[in-house]
Amino acid sequence: MYKISITDSLIQNAVSLESSQRLLAEKGGMSAEYSTRVARNVNMEKLQSNYLFPEIAAREMKHRKKYPNAKVISLGIGDTTQPIPLNVALSMANFAQALSTPEGYSGYGLEQGNQELRKAVAATMYKDLPVKDTEIFISDGSQSEISRLQLLLGPHVSIAVQDQSFPAYVDSGVIIGQTGDYDHASGRYRNIEYMKCGPENNFFPDLSKTPRTDIIFFCSPNNPTGHASSREQLTQLVEFAQRNGSIIIFDSAYAAFVSDGSPRSIFEIPGARKVAIEVASFSKLAGFTGIRLGWTVVPDELLYSDGFPVQHDFNRIICTCFNGASKVAQAGGLACLSPEGLKAINSVVDYYKENASILIDSFTSLGLDVYGGRNAPYVWVHFPGSKSWDVFNEILEKTHIITVPGSGFGPGGEGFLRVTAFGQRDDILEASRRIKSLL
Amino acid sequence: MYKISITDSLIQNAVSLESSQRLLAEKGGMSAEYSTRVARNVNMEKLQSNYLFPEIAAREMKHRKKYPNAKVISLGIGDTTQPIPLNVALSMANFAQALSTPEGYSGYGLEQGNQELRKAVAATMYKDLPVKDTEIFISDGSQSEISRLQLLLGPHVSIAVQDQSFPAYVDSGVIIGQTGDYDHASGRYRNIEYMKCGPENNFFPDLSKTPRTDIIFFCSPNNPTGHASSREQLTQLVEFAQRNGSIIIFDSAYAAFVSDGSPRSIFEIPGARKVAIEVASFSKLAGFTGIRLGWTVVPDELLYSDGFPVQHDFNRIICTCFNGASKVAQAGGLACLSPEGLKAINSVVDYYKENASILIDSFTSLGLDVYGGRNAPYVWVHFPGSKSWDVFNEILEKTHIITVPGSGFGPGGEGFLRVTAFGQRDDILEASRRIKSLL
Repeated sequence: MYKISITDSLIQNAVSLESSQRLLAEKGGMSAEYSTRVARNVNMEKLQSNYLFPEIAAREMKHRKKYPNAKVISLGIGDTTQPIPLNVALSMANFAQALSTPEGYSGYGLEQGNQELRKAVAATMYKDLPVKDTEIFISDGSQSEISRLQLLLGPHVSIAVQDQSFPAYVDSGVIIGQTGDYDHASGRYRNIEYMKCGPENNFFPDLSKTPRTDIIFFCSPNNPTGHASSREQLTQLVEFAQRNGSIIIFDSAYAAFVSDGSPRSIFEIPGARKVAIEVASFSKLAGFTGIRLGWTVVPDELLYSDGFPVQHDFNRIICTCFNGASKVAQAGGLACLSPEGLKAINSVVDYYKENASILIDSFTSLGLDVYGGRNAPYVWVHFPGSKSWDVFNEILEKTHIITVPGSGFGPGGEGFLRVTAFGQRDDILEASRRIKSLL
Repeated sequence: MYKISITDSLIQNAVSLESSQRLLAEKGGMSAEYSTRVARNVNMEKLQSNYLFPEIAAREMKHRKKYPNAKVISLGIGDTTQPIPLNVALSMANFAQALSTPEGYSGYGLEQGNQELRKAVAATMYKDLPVKDTEIFISDGSQSEISRLQLLLGPHVSIAVQDQSFPAYVDSGVIIGQTGDYDHASGRYRNIEYMKCGPENNFFPDLSKTPRTDIIFFCSPNNPTGHASSREQLTQLVEFAQRNGSIIIFDSAYAAFVSDGSPRSIFEIPGARKVAIEVASFSKLAGFTGIRLGWTVVPDELLYSDGFPVQHDFNRIICTCFNGASKVAQAGGLACLSPEGLKAINSVVDYYKENASILIDSFTSLGLDVYGGRNAPYVWVHFPGSKSWDVFNEILEKTHIITVPGSGFGPGGEGFLRVTAFGQRDDILEASRRIKSLL
């Protein structure tokens, strides 16, 4: 009864959105009703309301009404489906139970996170790299952390994002005030540099033509394309940032899926410590999407133009705008990094990668060009000349499979679909059969 | 080994602060070192670096070095000390353990929180009030939530705070850009309205002399003064907000400690639904300081000047800048609100209130005027004509007791000390003996 699917969540958001809009429409001039005299935040006004996942949820809801007996398979949102390892679950359970005893109880933790966990992250995730435990800040996941980084940076920095990218970078940039208005014609916000990534450039931007920005959000393995940037590509990126005096915010949420030797951390690249922050997460690494845990690395050497250490301001943000991740979640994170935990979480990652292989084969059998999926839990399928939402609708109508239209990740995603490899094997196999039947 | 005291946390912050400053000082002109070309956020530059609790931690550290054999008693930071009820701990433990099974596993939850928990909060905490579950957003605690509310409101609103108040309102306002520079002479940031509250006005501002602001942060029972505003006072506040078209952000973190019939929620006041947001927490209610759980009420009727519902934008913030509280914590919150849980958490609150009585008696016996402590876990002691930091030092030197200087909560707190009633009974009794020995 405590289990709520993400689909319900998204449907609720979609419904809430709809009812707000209806409420506003019904109110008309609103003269009769009491309003405060507080002006709506202009940055919130700029945000486009048809946020990707609620829109998908609304379409799914409509589809389910139309076909009440169909078994809908969701390969939409990237949500983990496999149980967490027993030792991790028991570690959290024991920690929680001990909170009812005088010996086991404790109150506030360090805002930066439990020291033992910070040390374990440094020792296991950065073992051959010079990342110190004091440079690691434990978070409640990447999404919250990206907004805290935006609070750190403020409204006056210029930003670049990969086109396509996870919507939170752009949306949080709009909210903090870094961007201009949304331009409906181009599908872009003004004052953001969209770095086009696609098959034509091996999913890596042409940096010789990319203008300087203060901040570069860069996700590898990438959500949504599933492309892991190579060592050579990331070396180019770090050198580009050094030449321009930019800061890279490197999102490594899918690092655990890398299997071809591509870097799992930006700090594998020489010089990155002077130009990069890394945002990482237990969500996809260990199935912690509902448990909420991640970490962020802010190296000592990263300095603002006046020489002030970025880490110092970030520490202040963490202490003022956050109060630490749940200690229960942190106990689970620590168990993940034990030898037993690492072995177990790696086998779950392998399971999802096998799912990805099945999906790659399925779409390839239709004669389509398929990207990603080898170093990431996302498969990125090309439908040249088609509109993403049209393909989304067609696949939903013919196969009852939910995907994500690529255009939802930026205008460069038009003509693509993102398909997630998170799922039960039976569902993935059934999805594969339905996809192949489209031939 | 997983247990870390808040003191360690604060010392680490103090040390980190110190080393950053030293690093910066050592660097001097910094010409030889590589810096990015990203300008430091001007809002972060405005923040004063001697943040209250790290400064206290630094002084405590010094004191412990000076008196290595003294038993220091901390009545400083307001951190819970008593174990959580067994049914609450077991509920979290069972939920966590089930995550290792196919039946018990689930991924992302609703960003707004588990529906059952939202319903339970509405039914138990607002049982005679028209607060709906859909108006309740589950958070990871008040501190994070205040910053998310600042993201919602943006840099262009004007704000008022009680003087004295919890530093997070002011500091987050500085970070988001709502304020001017810090004025060292007055100890205030420019462009914030500081509403003086003290014994002379029964800890409630003179609203006839208070200028209009867009936002009014108001905490009752108050941190640090321990004063619970009366029904009449809060009625005045709501009417003031209505006249001015302001929004009250009402922090009710200490509501569980109210025992004299004062309102525990701003929504007990007629008309509040059109002018108020309420931020609440399980931290002090149920000892969840390290577990991280709270909730926020944004009523349907709260509208911006253009009639747009505040709740709609807040929902967007929650979905973009947050990804829900840990599901394990939410399972614990639900157990707190069961009849068994409520009974158990109330008895812990009573224990802390007994501590407060002991502390009130102790300071009263010195002939001092003592406020708070009857509806709150904080006792507010007046030392007329003295500087807070001097009294802090004197008490530390003579009794080895850590308190909090009132001036740390705003210039109006000068001459006061805040003493927390969270603690083990034995420590409180020992502190009482030492305080009385000052006579």
